[in-house]
Amino acid sequence: MPLISNRAKAMPESPIRKLSILAEKVVKEGKHVFHLNIGQPDIAPPIEALDAVRKHKLEVLAYSESIGFKSLREKLAKYYIKQRITVSFDDILVTTGASEALLFTLGCITDPDDEIIVQEPFYANYYGFSTQSRIKIVPLTSTIDNGFALSSIKDFEKCITDKTKAILICNPSNPTGYLYTKEEIKKLSALAIKYNLFLISDEVYREFVYDDLEHYSILQEKSINDHAIVVDSVSKRYSMCGARIGCIVSKNKSFIQTATKFAQARLSPPTFAQIASEAALDAPESYYIETVAKYKARRDVLVEGLRQIPGVKVALPNGGFYCIVELPIKDADHFTKWLLETFHVNKETVMLAPASGFYYNHNRGLNQVRIAYVLDIEDLKKAINILRLALEQYSEEESLTLYNYEINA
Amino acid sequence: MPLISNRAKAMPESPIRKLSILAEKVVKEGKHVFHLNIGQPDIAPPIEALDAVRKHKLEVLAYSESIGFKSLREKLAKYYIKQRITVSFDDILVTTGASEALLFTLGCITDPDDEIIVQEPFYANYYGFSTQSRIKIVPLTSTIDNGFALSSIKDFEKCITDKTKAILICNPSNPTGYLYTKEEIKKLSALAIKYNLFLISDEVYREFVYDDLEHYSILQEKSINDHAIVVDSVSKRYSMCGARIGCIVSKNKSFIQTATKFAQARLSPPTFAQIASEAALDAPESYYIETVAKYKARRDVLVEGLRQIPGVKVALPNGGFYCIVELPIKDADHFTKWLLETFHVNKETVMLAPASGFYYNHNRGLNQVRIAYVLDIEDLKKAINILRLALEQYSEEESLTLYNYEINA
Repeated sequence: MPLISNRAKAMPESPIRKLSILAEKVVKEGKHVFHLNIGQPDIAPPIEALDAVRKHKLEVLAYSESIGFKSLREKLAKYYIKQRITVSFDDILVTTGASEALLFTLGCITDPDDEIIVQEPFYANYYGFSTQSRIKIVPLTSTIDNGFALSSIKDFEKCITDKTKAILICNPSNPTGYLYTKEEIKKLSALAIKYNLFLISDEVYREFVYDDLEHYSILQEKSINDHAIVVDSVSKRYSMCGARIGCIVSKNKSFIQTATKFAQARLSPPTFAQIASEAALDAPESYYIETVAKYKARRDVLVEGLRQIPGVKVALPNGGFYCIVELPIKDADHFTKWLLETFHVNKETVMLAPASGFYYNHNRGLNQVRIAYVLDIEDLKKAINILRLALEQYSEEESLTLYNYEINA
Repeated sequence: MPLISNRAKAMPESPIRKLSILAEKVVKEGKHVFHLNIGQPDIAPPIEALDAVRKHKLEVLAYSESIGFKSLREKLAKYYIKQRITVSFDDILVTTGASEALLFTLGCITDPDDEIIVQEPFYANYYGFSTQSRIKIVPLTSTIDNGFALSSIKDFEKCITDKTKAILICNPSNPTGYLYTKEEIKKLSALAIKYNLFLISDEVYREFVYDDLEHYSILQEKSINDHAIVVDSVSKRYSMCGARIGCIVSKNKSFIQTATKFAQARLSPPTFAQIASEAALDAPESYYIETVAKYKARRDVLVEGLRQIPGVKVALPNGGFYCIVELPIKDADHFTKWLLETFHVNKETVMLAPASGFYYNHNRGLNQVRIAYVLDIEDLKKAINILRLALEQYSEEESLTLYNYEINA
């Protein structure tokens, strides 16, 4: 049999999806599973988006421009200007999700064995895209104790080698919910200039910011126009994960021209999804306000609930809809499986995403999980209660197992 | 300014799309352009597909399974069985177009600097995907004189090194229209076994086969179950280029499992497009029959028309909807630009795809163009007439230019 490549062997399984088969199995057996593991919002997309697709008048389903509908790019530019990000449609290239935006970006700016510095815990698929691109992630660990704030610039400088091509952040962060401050963005910008690096910011959660804080985009830093690359998507903003529309935004013309070659090779982004995305941009202000209010209320319920469970630690997330939670356990992977297979409260259980998959070194974050607060408040309360009861029982069983192990050893 | 990567610099511009800006310009100036350059069918998709999207009842636009809707994979399996290709839904992974199918495939089976053997002229984007994957295409040139038939197995063997991971064919071929015979497929299969290589077949034009010939898929060769990977798409079969749905089909379980990791990293294929693609599979037999009859009639008109132009050479394409045409000129790139910029018949002109972009070495095929017969017969006749008149005028101007050049030299 011909062989699988080394890069493919190194490709990670998704820590969010790898337990899906087990989850499907227990659901078939009659359990209800509250999904705290995946950032799949339950919120409806703007009705404008769904209707636009219903009313489509296409007779021929042609390729679109490789860089996306011009009308969509123009509307996106207007959207950014509203966010105080001054770009024109020429600075925008439409992609098949932020996933493709990041793959194109890595293709444009790195060669095999190059390095990018990423604050960890990071969005697990960054590891997949880097492996696919045959480059190395150099992780800089942030900790729960200071809410996953940016590492010091000195620590960043220690990571820089002649192979370093970029710094990649997610702002607000998936999985930590941390919102980078304007000051932190300015520090990173200075660093990018000093070492002539690209600064890539994944800003797909831009709107989801709480506690009267403001999102500050790297594109608002004029000094780094040639360095700044924003990766974006409609998946979370409009709860349109299934559309698969994202974009790359950069004032660096040579970068956008280069990315266009990658876009041409795969022909075009999906047409129906572009129609939906263009219409979504017509959503009234109230859509954003209501959505953010919903997430904020959920966050408050979640964090308050979690903090009442003995031994659980959580940093208040200021943005996005995730948080990293430290649990009084040794192995979140085992705990997650146990929750699905063994535990239930009236045939209900929860599914978590073990956090180790969000660290470069999978031996980190073993006692942490990522929780996505994408359930309505009543379900969220039930899920927290299940988690509380589960931790009680698990810690008893765990110490018992340990005891047995010691006897048998 | 931070630098663009070497792989990105090596990414080719699309030979099909690179002149699009010029074409747009002349259209704005009032010229009508007959597009013979791009395989963008004018044919309508099955009404079932467009209607399914119009009638969608989605309230939440969620990620689908990374490997695609199970219902779509099941229906695809039934479609393949009808084509005498015995596969189950487990052997099928839904992708965002055949483009992604090929990128995943190369990712799964090659590491940087590995080699794949490709019969040339080949679909230009194979070069883009290989560059993106940092691997090398080893081209084997086929010629217009024997209709672009498969090179001899001896010639293939000469190309095999310890870096060779796969042979890639397109059957029927874009850009030549050549349909590989059952005998040729059997020879390639034996070669794949002998050297333990993957055999990748891009079969997106499977249905478009003429003159009572039959398509023989590599998946019909049971002996190479572990070697055979088919790349497929709904783009051409159902004239749904803008949907962006394709798939990978293979009986090699380990390969499909590996490709699943790539699929998970990019989350899911587009939802609306999956809905459309699933419905397209309900198209009645008459849809296929009528579409093939249309292309066959166009092919006949095109080939007959071209053969009446002095100095033009074309091999009868048995499949697909392209052919490579040799013209009595020196530089098809120059001729194509001249057609757009300078020439017109009553403000009408044609756009061609210079064939050099379909060869690994862009100095090959300089006097060839690829023609896609995706226009209706009346337009096709007009386009051929324009091409005939253009060649007359061009050859006069070309010899004049040459004469002037000699005087000035």
